[in-house]
Amino acid sequence: METVRLRLDLAYDGTAFSGWSSQPGLRSIQGVIDEALAVLMRHPKHDVRLVVAGRTDAGVHATGQVVHVDVSAARWRALSAARRGGTAEQSFARRMNGIIGGRSGDVVISRVSIAAAGFDARFSPIWRRYEYRIADASSARDPRRRSHTLWHTGHLDVGAMDAAARSLTGLHDFAAFCKPRERATTIRTLLEYGWSRDEHGVLVAAVRADAFCHSMVRSLVGGAVAVGLGTLEPQQLSQILTDAVKANAFPVVAAKGLTLVEVGYPADAEVGARAALTRARRTPMDPAVDPLD
Amino acid sequence: METVRLRLDLAYDGTAFSGWSSQPGLRSIQGVIDEALAVLMRHPKHDVRLVVAGRTDAGVHATGQVVHVDVSAARWRALSAARRGGTAEQSFARRMNGIIGGRSGDVVISRVSIAAAGFDARFSPIWRRYEYRIADASSARDPRRRSHTLWHTGHLDVGAMDAAARSLTGLHDFAAFCKPRERATTIRTLLEYGWSRDEHGVLVAAVRADAFCHSMVRSLVGGAVAVGLGTLEPQQLSQILTDAVKANAFPVVAAKGLTLVEVGYPADAEVGARAALTRARRTPMDPAVDPLD
Repeated sequence: METVRLRLDLAYDGTAFSGWSSQPGLRSIQGVIDEALAVLMRHPKHDVRLVVAGRTDAGVHATGQVVHVDVSAARWRALSAARRGGTAEQSFARRMNGIIGGRSGDVVISRVSIAAAGFDARFSPIWRRYEYRIADASSARDPRRRSHTLWHTGHLDVGAMDAAARSLTGLHDFAAFCKPRERATTIRTLLEYGWSRDEHGVLVAAVRADAFCHSMVRSLVGGAVAVGLGTLEPQQLSQILTDAVKANAFPVVAAKGLTLVEVGYPADAEVGARAALTRARRTPMDPAVDPLD
Repeated sequence: METVRLRLDLAYDGTAFSGWSSQPGLRSIQGVIDEALAVLMRHPKHDVRLVVAGRTDAGVHATGQVVHVDVSAARWRALSAARRGGTAEQSFARRMNGIIGGRSGDVVISRVSIAAAGFDARFSPIWRRYEYRIADASSARDPRRRSHTLWHTGHLDVGAMDAAARSLTGLHDFAAFCKPRERATTIRTLLEYGWSRDEHGVLVAAVRADAFCHSMVRSLVGGAVAVGLGTLEPQQLSQILTDAVKANAFPVVAAKGLTLVEVGYPADAEVGARAALTRARRTPMDPAVDPLD
């Protein structure tokens, strides 16, 4: 079957989902998109093969998630010919949102585009960026945004958190911040990690890395919160990184404060080469174990 | 009974409320605060008399609502003496949030303070400021913020909306934008009304006036949306204002996009004089009909 590779950019509120991945009997983001694609493309549902940039856990949100999917070129052309205004891509996004979104609005297709040659949502990225939001004072608690902000009791020292966060950036073995998975690498480049308060007094972390091991962002945030509370010295956090042994000095924070904000891809001409490079890098270990997320 | 006048600043997500005012059998913000105050102050519930700056309709949100309430000075002192850390005001806010908020988090006491002499939450304000949020493109729809953003189908011309909005500012009879209420004045000073897109492409209106007549903000937004769609010329909107007759040229927009953001009060030394002035201004009409909101 001749196919067209589509890139879908999507946003979701993770509250009412069991996470990204389809699981029998549970509501997942993948499941909702699969179902809508199956209806629109007249594929059997099990033939829809979504490939995702970052498999988010239960309760985690996204404003910049990216997937790719190969769909029937014939059906794509038929839909395109039948459209009423706008480009084929806009019409496709509108139809998808019509099928998905009417009910609850917690998943939205932000944009549809025809993928560049060689584009792979999972293997082409050069980085993933997450945001974590914490309200540590009553005055910063906006009930409208409670679904995606952690309400923390006790004042946090944002300056100390920011300094500690910055000290963790660079190429390191993040084993101390990863839920262990056999034969999955924990060596990552943390490109950016910092804390600041927004105009409403909410603490916001920006965390960007080439890729993340399992629960890494929530663990990095947990470490910074311990520093912000004064229960952990900044140097202790650096030492935990150096020791590269799973840390028990602080808890992993709740999923609700976490949002996948953006996935960085190279220029169109480079996406194929980047995907090949990423795939090659993971071969020393079991290719069935996915070190990327 | 010796009393202390407290000022409470509060925030709420209006989605699950029938509006500000207590109504039998319905969940209201006033009802939730009344109940918590009655528990904390050991008042009978019907003795709690909240006075509010802006009585919001069903579904309308607030991040800067203000109320005042007179509580027993003896009980205030007892609570203050029994506190474990922080100021008496902080401790009071924490206790209130403990009683209110555990369940759903959709109402928060942001701040508690002892009111300045003569302070009246309803009569002292010099202005009220509202915000209205509209996402007119899929790429601007953030599912995390769907409770307080109108999702509008069809592109809106923000430049035309902003120009039309600005043309309505000043002292006018806003009868064309008010749900008529017998003997309530519709003469208002619209201090600020403008539209812009935020960094995510969401259309945001800032609307500020000395006070608003019923449904005025949602009607002003409805008029601007009609201009943004091109179904109403900007001059037609100005003409509707001049005619001062209830307009049928555009619908009132949904409550969900609307948030009371801030209530402006004069300096502490002026709040009493301002309250007296506001009260005096409403006497020509039936004082039972409240022209302020």
